[in-house]
Amino acid sequence: MRINHGFHATMNAQPGKGDEVVALLLDAPSLPHPDCVVFLVGRSAGDPDVVHVTEGWTSPEAHAAFFATAPAQALVAALQPLLAGSAYSDEVPVGGKAF
Amino acid sequence: MRINHGFHATMNAQPGKGDEVVALLLDAPSLPHPDCVVFLVGRSAGDPDVVHVTEGWTSPEAHAAFFATAPAQALVAALQPLLAGSAYSDEVPVGGKAF
Repeated sequence: MRINHGFHATMNAQPGKGDEVVALLLDAPSLPHPDCVVFLVGRSAGDPDVVHVTEGWTSPEAHAAFFATAPAQALVAALQPLLAGSAYSDEVPVGGKAF
Repeated sequence: MRINHGFHATMNAQPGKGDEVVALLLDAPSLPHPDCVVFLVGRSAGDPDVVHVTEGWTSPEAHAAFFATAPAQALVAALQPLLAGSAYSDEVPVGGKAF
């Protein structure tokens, strides 16, 4: 299995900011990164300000190295004022299909 | 967007049954179905008996029609004795990448 690190995040956007959060995530620098195997963005059907992302990386070290880069920190900085809170679970992708 | 229906499920397997649940899901008849756009299986890093699946379908009707088929009901029947419980959220995949 190529994935050795992952998580599922649920982000609560500030009211009305769900669209901006989704747009930022769909343009995340994680997506073209070769160590990022899964980056699935989702959204609550009932509350457009609840946004989810499931990530799977080749290793914790690869994710940490990416997270320290300027593009990753720029995304964190752009998201921060748009979010009221977030919660993580230790879900690690193991297989299936997506986009 | 091709996806108009989806959910995120967290299944608590009976103790020690997580491997069997994951194996059944990775062989699910949803995977080759053309109306199933996303079917991402995940697992808790901390508890191998906690299994997740994120699904995205072209429409609620397509999912309902699939769910009524014999292969889908056979999967439900195979999973049922392996599970202690499950919980759903209304997460609908909107984009990203995976396997």
